[in-house]
Amino acid sequence: MVLPNLLHQAHEYIRCVLPAGGVAIDATVGNGNDTLFLAKIVGKSGTVYGFDIQDQALRATRKRLESEGHMKQVQLFQYPHQQPWSEILPNQLRQNIDAVMFNLGYLPHGDPSIITKPQSTIAACEQALEWLRSGGLITLVLYTGHKGGTEEAESVLKWCRSLPHPQFSIMLHQRLNRTHAPSLVVIEKNFDRKMLCQ
Amino acid sequence: MVLPNLLHQAHEYIRCVLPAGGVAIDATVGNGNDTLFLAKIVGKSGTVYGFDIQDQALRATRKRLESEGHMKQVQLFQYPHQQPWSEILPNQLRQNIDAVMFNLGYLPHGDPSIITKPQSTIAACEQALEWLRSGGLITLVLYTGHKGGTEEAESVLKWCRSLPHPQFSIMLHQRLNRTHAPSLVVIEKNFDRKMLCQ
Repeated sequence: MVLPNLLHQAHEYIRCVLPAGGVAIDATVGNGNDTLFLAKIVGKSGTVYGFDIQDQALRATRKRLESEGHMKQVQLFQYPHQQPWSEILPNQLRQNIDAVMFNLGYLPHGDPSIITKPQSTIAACEQALEWLRSGGLITLVLYTGHKGGTEEAESVLKWCRSLPHPQFSIMLHQRLNRTHAPSLVVIEKNFDRKMLCQ
Repeated sequence: MVLPNLLHQAHEYIRCVLPAGGVAIDATVGNGNDTLFLAKIVGKSGTVYGFDIQDQALRATRKRLESEGHMKQVQLFQYPHQQPWSEILPNQLRQNIDAVMFNLGYLPHGDPSIITKPQSTIAACEQALEWLRSGGLITLVLYTGHKGGTEEAESVLKWCRSLPHPQFSIMLHQRLNRTHAPSLVVIEKNFDRKMLCQ
């Protein structure tokens, strides 16, 4: 199989920009898949900040990270990702984050009525753009198989289409003959060309 | 820049399935970019078949391939790609082609009124599916910046959505904040699971 699983594809993109010792955000911790992935890459000298509104998600993630020996470099917050990140993150990280991951929808094996929603997702994405360094990446995995999923995916895509180029490059990866397969959006914050020429 | 140029991305996919000594088709030769790329990969022991309806395209491509020393493994045909491939290709290649590339639209620096069109493009794609081996790939680069381009792209995407899964896996790669940037579709002909279990 040559065409990649889109969750793996998101990880491959992140590997391109996140160094050992780097700083990343998992904006939707869930069961901690991406948090663990990010923690392994940044290692003990880096930092991963993880947000989720559900205590159940954070407990499961903490347990998983501890059992794999990667909790030291991770800070978990029970915090709605659309709230100001400045209340949680050190100010010197503004425009210095290497990567932000979003995995939308609901918590697998959790309450399917607790879902991410268009307005708060986009508010969180706006903050991610602001906190990201030049050359950094945001990945968003979108789901349409649950109630509200299609509406959220469409809102996110519309918002992406509104972002200015060349400040941001954005790619959608979408399966064409599978209903409700997840899609992947990658947003790259481009280097300021004027800055590069100085 | 982490996000790839989609023409390069198409090549990266093709590299995964096309071996030295393999057989590939460039269904839209144009100025020979993809033909040359395919010819370099298959080498002297492989074969590339190239179709185009314009003599101008075939002459430019032949000249380019000859100057780079890769014409030996290439056979060029002034032939509409929607016509039966069985009139050109040896019958033993049926279901044995490793890769087929399409780069739609019009010939760069040529007559912009001579364009690929929905009905003939899809007829050619249908044949590509039939001639492809299991595990082989079709890549299609779609353009919407010329008259008729959007209509063609929409027809191709609609046709892709109608193909059966799991026989075919299909991924669309699309820039979200650039009007008329090309898009890339990759179709993978999956191995027959029943056959694999025998």
